[in-house]
Amino acid sequence: MFDILRFIETKRDGGNNGAEDLKVFVRSIMEGSVRDYHVAAWLMAVYLNGMAEDELLAFTDALANSGEVVSFGRGVKTVDKHSTGGVGDKATLILVPLVAACGLSVAKLSGRGLGFTGGTVDKLESIPGFKVDMTLEEFKSQVEEIGCAVAGHSPDLAPAEAFFYELRDVTATVPSLPLICSSIVSKKIAGGADSFVFDVKYGSGAFMSDLEDAKKLAESLVNLSNKMGHPSSALLTSMDEPLGKWIGNSMEVLESVEVLKNSGPEDTTELCLALAGEMLLNGGMVTSPEAGVEMARSALVEGRGLKKLAELVVRQGGPADLVDYPSKYLQPSPLVYELKAQGDGFISSVNTRFIGEGIRRLGGGRSDKEESIDPGAALEITVKIGDKVKTGDVIMKCYSDDPSSVDYAREYLDRSWTVDVEAVRPPLILGRVD
Amino acid sequence: MFDILRFIETKRDGGNNGAEDLKVFVRSIMEGSVRDYHVAAWLMAVYLNGMAEDELLAFTDALANSGEVVSFGRGVKTVDKHSTGGVGDKATLILVPLVAACGLSVAKLSGRGLGFTGGTVDKLESIPGFKVDMTLEEFKSQVEEIGCAVAGHSPDLAPAEAFFYELRDVTATVPSLPLICSSIVSKKIAGGADSFVFDVKYGSGAFMSDLEDAKKLAESLVNLSNKMGHPSSALLTSMDEPLGKWIGNSMEVLESVEVLKNSGPEDTTELCLALAGEMLLNGGMVTSPEAGVEMARSALVEGRGLKKLAELVVRQGGPADLVDYPSKYLQPSPLVYELKAQGDGFISSVNTRFIGEGIRRLGGGRSDKEESIDPGAALEITVKIGDKVKTGDVIMKCYSDDPSSVDYAREYLDRSWTVDVEAVRPPLILGRVD
Repeated sequence: MFDILRFIETKRDGGNNGAEDLKVFVRSIMEGSVRDYHVAAWLMAVYLNGMAEDELLAFTDALANSGEVVSFGRGVKTVDKHSTGGVGDKATLILVPLVAACGLSVAKLSGRGLGFTGGTVDKLESIPGFKVDMTLEEFKSQVEEIGCAVAGHSPDLAPAEAFFYELRDVTATVPSLPLICSSIVSKKIAGGADSFVFDVKYGSGAFMSDLEDAKKLAESLVNLSNKMGHPSSALLTSMDEPLGKWIGNSMEVLESVEVLKNSGPEDTTELCLALAGEMLLNGGMVTSPEAGVEMARSALVEGRGLKKLAELVVRQGGPADLVDYPSKYLQPSPLVYELKAQGDGFISSVNTRFIGEGIRRLGGGRSDKEESIDPGAALEITVKIGDKVKTGDVIMKCYSDDPSSVDYAREYLDRSWTVDVEAVRPPLILGRVD
Repeated sequence: MFDILRFIETKRDGGNNGAEDLKVFVRSIMEGSVRDYHVAAWLMAVYLNGMAEDELLAFTDALANSGEVVSFGRGVKTVDKHSTGGVGDKATLILVPLVAACGLSVAKLSGRGLGFTGGTVDKLESIPGFKVDMTLEEFKSQVEEIGCAVAGHSPDLAPAEAFFYELRDVTATVPSLPLICSSIVSKKIAGGADSFVFDVKYGSGAFMSDLEDAKKLAESLVNLSNKMGHPSSALLTSMDEPLGKWIGNSMEVLESVEVLKNSGPEDTTELCLALAGEMLLNGGMVTSPEAGVEMARSALVEGRGLKKLAELVVRQGGPADLVDYPSKYLQPSPLVYELKAQGDGFISSVNTRFIGEGIRRLGGGRSDKEESIDPGAALEITVKIGDKVKTGDVIMKCYSDDPSSVDYAREYLDRSWTVDVEAVRPPLILGRVD
């Protein structure tokens, strides 16, 4: 008989919960015999006392197997990518077709945006007709047939993970390394991909503002995935300024098309090639990250990534000419405000989190799960850290369907940029963990 | 606005919750806006990170004032007594009339027994007609009029304490010093007494089996009560063997009558006089514990305690001749089993907890709140630790209405006594804290 009090006591007293107990614990939650308050007490004990590696593996396994687990046909090699979330981060939109164009299948399950970070699902839904709701069977078939798919999270995959995710949110147990890692990796495993890449962001626009914390998270994610039989690596990347030139759902899709046409912003292109290199390495297509980057670069330069995006868009219900005439479908809302430099000097820093809050207040994000989004709400950023500006130069243009939202957004936006007598642009990629 | 997540985070990160926040926290629980899982996470954080003295005072105050607070008329000085629970512990039955007979009012709120310890309410209810259910108004009037009353806990007093008590039980957060102390003291404060005495038991039949832990608990209870304006002291007393000769509801009342006739077992009499001395000291009737003991001894020897018990019993619905003819009302159930010494030597130890489990299985206690009790179920103990015995000597007699229960009880009882080549009887009172 499973003794829930003994189980909580073990963790409370700094001991390790056994693999079989963790499995029964997760099953008992699903069956309703273990209650919210039991789990809340256990979560706080884990937060304060941590988890040993054996426990973390067993707990992640129990979460991953708490519902359906996607399984692709023999011979189909799949990779998935996870970002810890950023502002203007449209890498998924580019990576999915680019890596698939290299012959490695990409099975991507994505979420919606909440708070100051955007979500891939919201971005793709700004394409007219594009559908991310599909059954797991449809998801599987599409990956097997065209080599890639992007779907919204399915409630049938790792349902216990969703339970823990919600309860952590209301018990002050979110920022716990083992709880974060088990959450992320269990969902990836249930999604069926063979290998993963993690884009762990740090800086003013990331959940982790400290590089050491980000490094620990990256190491823990990679170690856990590898131990569970999913070859993985991680890049530590800067979220000290927004990625690319555009922020906002429609315009991030447009920028992604531009990157796949090899005419996008330099930083976005660089990040995507580096991540694609890792994906190709972990998926066994190459033997070094450098070789992976070269393979991805060829697919980009030769337009094969763009072609794959067109195929993906059509398959998921979008217009056939999207990549040829993106502006026909993807436009910013009317210009409502131009932010100008208040002095001469160099752009020295940007509070990326404030930028994220600004786009949300312009209508491009949500603070509540039920809120609707203006896909055309956008910020066009015309400078990067280190750029020289003069008083009155335009730093950022703000677009919204709702002119009244601008004052609300300016509470954040006006305070987001700093001009100084000197400035150095930080590197985009700070490290690699495998 | 009270931010429950910030509140939990503060305790999680080792900080201190403010007095005003603790008040709002408790109020929000009562109103339902703070949920079980919030409290469960906070309880585990308190268990692991502790509470500062300021916090403990504020939390106890918030619990005490979460419902009604009894208030006695001007000039009525009241004292209450709390025992951490033992086996055969009938001290309350003796102390209430004895101290009242000395001119200090005793306002006693008591609980029922659960598990291996007995409860004063169950003991008193073995007196035909005796009622412990009364309104707070009736309780107050009785104390004011005859100087004492024993009532069951009222759900109107410190209702938040009851909430925490239940939730601690299912979240593995029971054995936490600040949570134990705030629970005990808040209930006492709501009960309206001016001063308290704590009988903190340690040994094989107590919740605390370690003397150091018991001492810490005693110090914490006394310090908290004193800081909250209720003069208090504590005795550390042994529960390494049952108190007195009889265990079981009816027979413990009978033994109490005998103690008040100054013809009861020595250990019970000694403990009660010592506790009475503390009560009289804390209530301001004397200036030293020794003087208190002497005052109580006079009341005992002169039969004033017995007379007060007779008055209490009549006032709460019991027979007028109980103290004159106790055996008319209080008898053991039929004898079902005699436990005999298995060798020659000295009684060296007794597992008092096993004795408590034994009486419960004979029908004298309950393992579930709803269970009914056989008031005549009893254990008559004919030896004390240190006594010389020969093979075949009777150690203990077992009485029950249900002969079939004896095998069930013997699983514990037969293993409870140890006979050795030598033995030393431990002291009954090990220390005093004020």
